[in-house]
Amino acid sequence: MANEAALSTLARILPGCVIFSDEQNHASMIEGIRHGGGPKRIWAHNDVEDLDRQLSEYSKDTPKVVAFESVYSMDGDIAPIAEICAVAKKHNALTYLDEVHAVGIYGPRGGGIADREGLMGEVDIIEGTLAKGFGLMGGYIAASTNMIDSIRSYAPGFIFTTSLAPAIVAGAVASIRHLKESQVEREQLQERSRELKDRMAAANLPVLENPSHIVPVMVGDPVRCKKLTDALLERFGVYVQPINYPTVRRGTERIRLTPAPYHTDADMDYLMDALNTLWQEMDLARAA
Amino acid sequence: MANEAALSTLARILPGCVIFSDEQNHASMIEGIRHGGGPKRIWAHNDVEDLDRQLSEYSKDTPKVVAFESVYSMDGDIAPIAEICAVAKKHNALTYLDEVHAVGIYGPRGGGIADREGLMGEVDIIEGTLAKGFGLMGGYIAASTNMIDSIRSYAPGFIFTTSLAPAIVAGAVASIRHLKESQVEREQLQERSRELKDRMAAANLPVLENPSHIVPVMVGDPVRCKKLTDALLERFGVYVQPINYPTVRRGTERIRLTPAPYHTDADMDYLMDALNTLWQEMDLARAA
Repeated sequence: MANEAALSTLARILPGCVIFSDEQNHASMIEGIRHGGGPKRIWAHNDVEDLDRQLSEYSKDTPKVVAFESVYSMDGDIAPIAEICAVAKKHNALTYLDEVHAVGIYGPRGGGIADREGLMGEVDIIEGTLAKGFGLMGGYIAASTNMIDSIRSYAPGFIFTTSLAPAIVAGAVASIRHLKESQVEREQLQERSRELKDRMAAANLPVLENPSHIVPVMVGDPVRCKKLTDALLERFGVYVQPINYPTVRRGTERIRLTPAPYHTDADMDYLMDALNTLWQEMDLARAA
Repeated sequence: MANEAALSTLARILPGCVIFSDEQNHASMIEGIRHGGGPKRIWAHNDVEDLDRQLSEYSKDTPKVVAFESVYSMDGDIAPIAEICAVAKKHNALTYLDEVHAVGIYGPRGGGIADREGLMGEVDIIEGTLAKGFGLMGGYIAASTNMIDSIRSYAPGFIFTTSLAPAIVAGAVASIRHLKESQVEREQLQERSRELKDRMAAANLPVLENPSHIVPVMVGDPVRCKKLTDALLERFGVYVQPINYPTVRRGTERIRLTPAPYHTDADMDYLMDALNTLWQEMDLARAA
């Protein structure tokens, strides 16, 4: 809940602060903005012009925070970080970037998309996780010393919660050290993801093309989406969660796959067979 | 953040629900009640008559939740659970009991104070932690299947957070299994706590007497409280947190000690020497 704690606290310690939130931001960011209780504006997804237009409705002196993600977990698309930061700076707004689906996974040191694009210095607050890419658990924010001190001194979600267990912290340190140097896992993840997307496309499964490692496959109906994932688990031992409204818009229900660097071609054969079997049995829509 | 998630969700799924909160409830409960956004009433600490009076201002049909703790972590006092549940039932109110400082530590199976007093069946929702008594991390609630299903289906704090890491869950299972059977640690904890309190009293240190394992020692000033704990850490290698306003009322600043079952007499000698030295150097108030 690092997003919830950080964003709600930020809104409280900057009186009158307006938060400009990308319309596809994750629920934890939305909760944080809501709990902060201050004014908010929603800007069109990854639309820098809309953000610019909305920011220009406020004076330079109004405290502003632009909150967005790098890799959006449902479509797997990637924000134009440089352009967003430039617009934010023009309007004297702080930037808050959720890199939860990118840290460990992108950038020469695993710092995320901002690391890959040499933009870490342009972003005021980067939020990440020790889960996902780093394989453990625990959310964090990275920012200037003053910013961190201000937020952690006032964030109930930080103060009144239990510290991470020592085994988790030791695991996280080991994982971060390794992924700061090693490119092998990052390269393999991209290769495995590309391979899976190519196989999906070749089989006419409705995979959503995108520039990240995330592999969304569209189902377009909540009941069949749930039935599909139940069958994947019960008959094939493959655990995938159905992604339905409100996580995604109605009509865009889907499953979301993320290969690991060590999934083999044989694993993919097995998964593709399972999906092809169920797609046929359930008469699900193929790619157009 | 189990309290935050459970109480805020409870308030949202029971429209018009009034939450009756003990005035000394922990910040995580207060946050949950606040985020729930519904009406709340504060009743005098552990005062069953005041609770009765306040509950009687509402009709039987108004949904009501009485939220309280078993062991209050700052003073170490214990709530009259039987009486509170009886009053709540009389007014058709649900009960929500935080046993964070009691699970693993009290009761023949480590279920907490309600377990010790045979009252687990009287309480509607018990909240606990896998930290503290169980030594790991992770908050939880225990309640009827329907209650759990309702809360977990709607609690963003549950849905949008990372699962506990497998090593933590394995540790928690082992810890719970052990403490369901073994009384040794519980008995030793009580003995060690009694011993430390007795030593404090014999040395005229202002220990707050109470019926739990928690050992609060009063300082009565926030600056000196911080100075004391800094000196404990820097000069004696003893890490104790200063407890200042707003966690406790102004003028009641304190340090809070909790011996572990395996702290030895030699450990206590060392601690008592450190405390006596600093109490004298800093000219802190002795017991009246």
